[in-house]
Amino acid sequence: MAVQTTSVAETCAAARAASLELARVDSRTRNAALEAMAAALEGRIEEILEANARDLEAGRDPGLTPALIDRLTLTADRVRSIAADVRRIRALPDPVGEVIEGRKLDNGLSMRKLRVPLGVVAVVYEARPNVTIDCSALCLKSGNAIVLRGSSTAAHSNAVLAGIAAQAVTAAGLPESSVSLIAGGGREELPTLATQDGLVDLIIPRGGEGLKATLVEHATVPVLHAASGNCHLFVDRSAEIDDAVAIAVNAKVQRPGVCNAIETLLVHSGTAAEFLPRALAELRESGVELRADERARSLAGEIGSTLGQATEEDWRTEFLALTLAVKIVDSVEEAIDHVNRYGSGHSEAIATGSTESARAFTEGVDAACVYVNASTRFTDGGEFGMGAEIGNSTQKLHARGPIGVRELCTFKYVLEGSGQVRS
Amino acid sequence: MAVQTTSVAETCAAARAASLELARVDSRTRNAALEAMAAALEGRIEEILEANARDLEAGRDPGLTPALIDRLTLTADRVRSIAADVRRIRALPDPVGEVIEGRKLDNGLSMRKLRVPLGVVAVVYEARPNVTIDCSALCLKSGNAIVLRGSSTAAHSNAVLAGIAAQAVTAAGLPESSVSLIAGGGREELPTLATQDGLVDLIIPRGGEGLKATLVEHATVPVLHAASGNCHLFVDRSAEIDDAVAIAVNAKVQRPGVCNAIETLLVHSGTAAEFLPRALAELRESGVELRADERARSLAGEIGSTLGQATEEDWRTEFLALTLAVKIVDSVEEAIDHVNRYGSGHSEAIATGSTESARAFTEGVDAACVYVNASTRFTDGGEFGMGAEIGNSTQKLHARGPIGVRELCTFKYVLEGSGQVRS
Repeated sequence: MAVQTTSVAETCAAARAASLELARVDSRTRNAALEAMAAALEGRIEEILEANARDLEAGRDPGLTPALIDRLTLTADRVRSIAADVRRIRALPDPVGEVIEGRKLDNGLSMRKLRVPLGVVAVVYEARPNVTIDCSALCLKSGNAIVLRGSSTAAHSNAVLAGIAAQAVTAAGLPESSVSLIAGGGREELPTLATQDGLVDLIIPRGGEGLKATLVEHATVPVLHAASGNCHLFVDRSAEIDDAVAIAVNAKVQRPGVCNAIETLLVHSGTAAEFLPRALAELRESGVELRADERARSLAGEIGSTLGQATEEDWRTEFLALTLAVKIVDSVEEAIDHVNRYGSGHSEAIATGSTESARAFTEGVDAACVYVNASTRFTDGGEFGMGAEIGNSTQKLHARGPIGVRELCTFKYVLEGSGQVRS
Repeated sequence: MAVQTTSVAETCAAARAASLELARVDSRTRNAALEAMAAALEGRIEEILEANARDLEAGRDPGLTPALIDRLTLTADRVRSIAADVRRIRALPDPVGEVIEGRKLDNGLSMRKLRVPLGVVAVVYEARPNVTIDCSALCLKSGNAIVLRGSSTAAHSNAVLAGIAAQAVTAAGLPESSVSLIAGGGREELPTLATQDGLVDLIIPRGGEGLKATLVEHATVPVLHAASGNCHLFVDRSAEIDDAVAIAVNAKVQRPGVCNAIETLLVHSGTAAEFLPRALAELRESGVELRADERARSLAGEIGSTLGQATEEDWRTEFLALTLAVKIVDSVEEAIDHVNRYGSGHSEAIATGSTESARAFTEGVDAACVYVNASTRFTDGGEFGMGAEIGNSTQKLHARGPIGVRELCTFKYVLEGSGQVRS
C-alpha cells in the first residue's frame, strides 16, 4: 500500500500496473484475498478501534457535527458487520470473464464479448471509514485496482483499514498496489487525481454535492456519481387506496434522508377526495410537513386548510427530509409530463389498478427505475439481487441505477481466427 | 425540422420533447419512417445532386483540398448506396424494448431490465454529407431524437438531406423534431450544444482531432468519440509464417488511413530471421515505408540495412499512412507490455500457433478488440454483425469497440408489484 510516500501520479501509475496483473488473476485468488480481508478485520478490531478513537478525539476539537461524528464512529459490532459485508461480496458470482454474448462471424472468426475489469477505479469519499473496505472489496471482486482518497477526519481509521486491505491482497499473492490510499489533507489532490488520463479509468465521488461538483468540474477521466433523487409517487384514479397510502407513507417516511425517498406526491383528481384525507393524515402523523397546491388543499377535506402552500420551487426540490410536496393532476399523461420535467431520473412509482396506465407510465417516464404498485425505496443493489452497491447512477451512459460489481466492469471483444484477412 | 430558425437551446428542447414521444413508438412505425427516408432519397436524387453541386462550387473558391472535395461529393450511385444503407439499418433487430435480463425479486417484485433509447443524441461532423442520413437512420432505429451539426462546407447538401429525413419522420406520424439540423457557420454553436445538460444525452463528434478536443474541453454532456487507433500485430515465435505475412500486409495495406490498421509490427526474436525478410519485402512492395529498431534491421537479412531507423516517437504514432514501425521482442509478455504501454486500446492482434501465447495475449492486452490469427481490420460494426456503426470507441465506459444501435441505447429497470413496501 502506498500512503503519502509517493505522488498522486506515481500512486496511480503503480495502480495501473497492478490492474494489468489483476485483470489476469482467477476468481479463486481474488476471493482468497477477500476472505483474508474479512478475517483480518475480525482479528484486528482492537487496533481499528484505537485508530478510530484517535480520529474521534481529533474530531472533537474542530467541532465536527454530531452527524459527522456518528458517521466516523466505529464499534466492534460495526467492524464485524463490515467483515460480513466483505464475505457477502466474496460470495457474489464473479463478473470477470463472463461471456456476455458470442457468435461465429460470417468470415469464420469466433467472437466473444467478455466482461473484464475497468482497470483503476478511484474513490473519493468523506467521513465514513467503512467506505475504505466496502469499495476495496467491490473493486477487488471486480478485478479492479483501487485508489482511495478519504477524508483527513478519518485519516487514522482509513490508514489501518486500507493497510488491512492491502495486506490481504498481498497475502493472496496479488500486487500490493491493488489497493492504495492517498492520505491527503484538503482537496488539493483532487484535481490531480481527476486528470490521470490513461491511468485512472473511473472516478467515483461518495459524498456531498460540493465534492461531486469539484470533481465534475476538474475531471478529464470519467466520473460516475451517486445521484440525487427527486422521486415521485403518482396515485392514479384506479389505485387501490390502502396500497397507495401504504406506499406513499413508506416511500416518504421509512428513511427520508436517502435518494430513493419520494419528494412529490402526484394524485389523480378523480381519486383525490378519497385518497388525500387518509394519506395526508397518516403522513402528518409520521411527522411529515406537507406542501400542497391549491386543488389538493381543496380536495383534501378537513386537513386541506391546514396544509402549506406548494410553490414551483417545491416541484424542483429534493428535500431529503420529512417534507412532501403534493399536486393534483388530471391524467397519467400529465403525471408523466410532470415527472419528466422535474424528476432527476432516479426512481418513480405509480399506484394504479389499470394496465393501460401502468404501461403508459413505465414506457413514458424517463428514469432509471420505474415502479408499479411498489415503493421507490427498493432501488438498491442489495434489493435488486446485485449484492452490494457503490452508489446509484442517474446518468444514462454505462450504468443506470444501482452500481454493483458488474457495473465496475467494461468488456472486451476476443476474436479467434485461422488467418482471416479483410477483402 | 428546425433549421436556423431557433436557437441551439430551443432546438435541443424540441428534440428532448420529441425524444419522449419517440421512446414510446413501436418498431413498425420507426421502420416505416426509415423506409420513407430510403424511398425519398432515391426519388429526389436530382434535387440532392443540385444542392451538392452548389456546395462543391462554393468549395472551389476557398480552395478545399482534393480529399475534402472527394468527401463532399455525392453522385447518383452514392445516393443510392446511402438509401441502401438506410434499408440495412431498418432491417436490423429493434434494440428498443429488448429485455436484457429479468427475474422475480425476493420480495415478489417482478423486475425487468429493458433497453431504451438514450433520448437526444447530438452528432457533430465535418464535410461528408452522407453522415446526415447515416446518423439520422441509426438514431431513428434506436428511438433517439438527433440534433445534427454539419459543416458549412456541406450546408446545401445537409439541408436537403436533413429535410428528407425530417419529412420521412413526419410522414410516419413521428414528431418533426425527431431530426433537427443546426446549420451554423464556424464552431461558435459547439460549446452551447455541448452544455445542454438535461436536454442532450450524448454528443458524438465525427471528424478530426481538433473537433474532438474542442468538444471534450467544453462538454458537460457525455461525449463518445470515435477513437484513434495505434494498433499492433505481434508475430509470435510459433506463428504460421504464411498467415502472419498475409495478416501483416492486410492489416497495414488494405486501407491504411483507418483506425483499425496497424502502426507497429512486433516480432518475436525467435522467428524474426524467417519472418522478417518475407514480410518486409511484401510490405515494401505494397509501398510501405518501414522504420525498424536495431535488432529488426540486423535480423531482417538483406533488406535490413535499407530500413529506416525507428525512434521512441514511432511507437507512439498513429501514422494513418503507408508507414510501419517494426520492433523485436523476446516474449509474448514483452509484446503485451509494449501494447499496453503504447497502444490506444483499439484493436490488437497476435499471430501464433501456441494456445498458451494466445491466452496470455487475449487476457493480458487491455484493448476493445483482441485478435488471434486474424487481421485487426475486422473491427467494424458491419463485420461484427451489429449492422452499421456510428464509430469505434476506445473508451471503457458504456461502449467499447463498434458503436451500433444497441450502444445508442441505455436501459431502464421496470419493477411491478402488488403493494410492496420496504421494511
